[in-house]
Amino acid sequence: MAQRLIVIGGDAAGMSTASQARRRRGRDDLDIVAFERGHFTSYSACGIPYWISGLVPEPEQLIAREPETFRSEYAIDVRMRHEVTAIDLERREVVARDLEGGGEVRERFDELMYAAGAVPVKPQWAHTDADGVFGMQTLDDGAALRDWLVAEPRPHRAVVVGGGYIGVEIAEALIQRGLSVTLIEQADQPMSTVDADMAELVADAMKGLGIHIRTGLAVTDLEQRDGRVSAVVTAEGPIPTDVVVLGLGVRPNTALAEAGGLPLGPTGGIRVDRRMRVPGLPGVWAAGDCVETLHRVSGLPVHVPLGTHANKQGRVAGINIGGGYATFTGVIGTAVTKVCELEVGRTGLRERDATAAGFEFVSVIAESTNRAGYYPGSRPMSVKLIAERPSGRLLGAQIVGWSEAAKRIDALAVALWNGMTVDEMTQLDLGYAPPYAPVWDPVLIAARKAVDVLTAVGR
Amino acid sequence: MAQRLIVIGGDAAGMSTASQARRRRGRDDLDIVAFERGHFTSYSACGIPYWISGLVPEPEQLIAREPETFRSEYAIDVRMRHEVTAIDLERREVVARDLEGGGEVRERFDELMYAAGAVPVKPQWAHTDADGVFGMQTLDDGAALRDWLVAEPRPHRAVVVGGGYIGVEIAEALIQRGLSVTLIEQADQPMSTVDADMAELVADAMKGLGIHIRTGLAVTDLEQRDGRVSAVVTAEGPIPTDVVVLGLGVRPNTALAEAGGLPLGPTGGIRVDRRMRVPGLPGVWAAGDCVETLHRVSGLPVHVPLGTHANKQGRVAGINIGGGYATFTGVIGTAVTKVCELEVGRTGLRERDATAAGFEFVSVIAESTNRAGYYPGSRPMSVKLIAERPSGRLLGAQIVGWSEAAKRIDALAVALWNGMTVDEMTQLDLGYAPPYAPVWDPVLIAARKAVDVLTAVGR
Repeated sequence: MAQRLIVIGGDAAGMSTASQARRRRGRDDLDIVAFERGHFTSYSACGIPYWISGLVPEPEQLIAREPETFRSEYAIDVRMRHEVTAIDLERREVVARDLEGGGEVRERFDELMYAAGAVPVKPQWAHTDADGVFGMQTLDDGAALRDWLVAEPRPHRAVVVGGGYIGVEIAEALIQRGLSVTLIEQADQPMSTVDADMAELVADAMKGLGIHIRTGLAVTDLEQRDGRVSAVVTAEGPIPTDVVVLGLGVRPNTALAEAGGLPLGPTGGIRVDRRMRVPGLPGVWAAGDCVETLHRVSGLPVHVPLGTHANKQGRVAGINIGGGYATFTGVIGTAVTKVCELEVGRTGLRERDATAAGFEFVSVIAESTNRAGYYPGSRPMSVKLIAERPSGRLLGAQIVGWSEAAKRIDALAVALWNGMTVDEMTQLDLGYAPPYAPVWDPVLIAARKAVDVLTAVGR
Repeated sequence: MAQRLIVIGGDAAGMSTASQARRRRGRDDLDIVAFERGHFTSYSACGIPYWISGLVPEPEQLIAREPETFRSEYAIDVRMRHEVTAIDLERREVVARDLEGGGEVRERFDELMYAAGAVPVKPQWAHTDADGVFGMQTLDDGAALRDWLVAEPRPHRAVVVGGGYIGVEIAEALIQRGLSVTLIEQADQPMSTVDADMAELVADAMKGLGIHIRTGLAVTDLEQRDGRVSAVVTAEGPIPTDVVVLGLGVRPNTALAEAGGLPLGPTGGIRVDRRMRVPGLPGVWAAGDCVETLHRVSGLPVHVPLGTHANKQGRVAGINIGGGYATFTGVIGTAVTKVCELEVGRTGLRERDATAAGFEFVSVIAESTNRAGYYPGSRPMSVKLIAERPSGRLLGAQIVGWSEAAKRIDALAVALWNGMTVDEMTQLDLGYAPPYAPVWDPVLIAARKAVDVLTAVGR
């Protein structure tokens, strides 16, 4: 009799697990059931802002694979609109509710993949019965916001609460749709995923787009009229609005896991080992936005919800469930985004992370250009490096620039991954041609500057 | 009394040496004299094609620093239009001829930097008295071609001989100026700096621009009429033309060095150690396009004339002459270029290099896109990886793509520099966002494919 793998959550991590396991074990050997409470499988959550803006016309474009594809090509029993409500590790069963048809099913498992993703952080004031307040985590969330934006009465003013990636991207999307947009950020600056000196460049770009930025300000309540949100309330008074989007980040979706007895780590994410096994619970796996992972630079556990990690982790789990051997060895916090034409990349530790992890360090910002100065289209680029003192080991890097800037963070990410020092980095053989870089690449200029500063402060 | 540094050659390597040495040693301590036979110092030779095309309007834009800047700000005695004709290591003197004023000077030195650059490879048939035949190595060469293109009678047809970087870039520049262009390449394909499978994509792009490509064909002679070149002669008959540009590569400019007793290595470049010292000759240094260096992957000496290396080597030599410590630890052959909108990047060994160096290897090409498939402007990108078998160690990589492709080679270059295996590379934390990459980055897709092939062929 075939063993059974049950997957909780039909997005990147869950379906990568299922399809990798299937590649290695046929249907006679492994029965695979995947429960997804939403309407979509395997979609790009990161693409939602571009659908909201209209840049991506149809939501179907964000879907990598339809449930039917998993059923027909992978022999995976995908059950849409089914929410798993309980995990019984004793009896090795899950209980799932059919959200549309009604009723409950109990299904036994031999292997269990918990890939329930993340849920938006939702402060007390956001628990409202007013319409027009949206999280922005799933494609269903995106669809709800899209519908609201085109329904009558048409919303004209928007407030985005929180200035992380999602908040910034949604703010840009809404202004592109013609709304008047205010972004409220509790910290001193939006885009706090980079240091304040680099975030300032991002804030300037957002203001240039016409986004009103209110920093150092917290939302404390909502006002409503006729069942619709009408304002957010702050210490500096109410800000009238027709729609509120929450961009306050996400936390691991672990309620079900906790109730079932899966262990959580200090970040609130599910603990897993490098094969994506849940420690102490044979046959139980977890992956994606619900788990915590190792930061390779700080050595500390972190929660980094990002599609690229979810896919890698799902693949690793699927290979292991399939009888192979694969490991996920941690992250270094690489991320890229853009605000209009301004591109932002980061990897490793910010200054505050480096301090918290106990590093002594220096940091430098080198101003350069994306192309040779004489080549048409040459635009400014700032590269920040954070290097341990006295070793010179790279701890983190950030890039902000106007064109062809963001993905240059990858070269720095690979340097960081390999534990390079800024001294070694000055020697790196990077691509040079006038359309792509000055003769001293911005990365090399930054590395030289870091070496100079390390020497000046004493090593 | 001050010591004296004499620099032969006033371009990237020579002037980087001079200015770095000056930063560390004042004029009372070190007297610096630089001889340059041409009309320009410290210019971007890589920018010449873009000046020829008109994309860069003025040649002055290519000049990083004028002679007067070196004189006034760095107290460097720059002597333009002076050609060094002899090096006397016994008497520690050089002899230089004033090409404009006439006469000769003898100058003693304590330290000698030989940075005479490279000279174009010029076959017998190119030694002609006909006008209209141009090398393309110096800004003076570029100026001569520019003058020819705008003089009467206006040339309408051009033949570029040789399909390396310079040949391809000049062919594009000439077609952008409205000439009819034929590129002749002795090998099976132009752009042989990448493997044939990748070069084919480049050749297709060139044809798309309207460049006539004739491969497997050698030029054997020139025809002239009224003192002007009128055709190149090949085994398949004459090809009429009004101008011929040589793009057959360059070789180290070492005639003077050889006569002076500086040792050459197997590539024909001057031998240097990692501090850029010429072995066995205390106080004698060399850097830039005239030296050979170590290929860090093959372990073999190579001659890689490129401005970025010349600048790094000059800086290293200048720091050492200045009393500091710096080393140049070799290259891995990273290079980028573009043909119209098609971008090309390479690093490490090509298949033929890997074979010549004695490696067993597998190679894969992964087809992907520069952005998420649904994101507007998503364009194809091909990533080729060459990995040692059975170790999986990366040996080389090539990228060809239509937009924002070339500089992605840097991430692979840093992976190569650090000796990563393709297995480790599948774990890399690279930047992901829909405007910049699919959720599986093209580099990761290629690494996965390489692992699969290594596994399939047995490790």
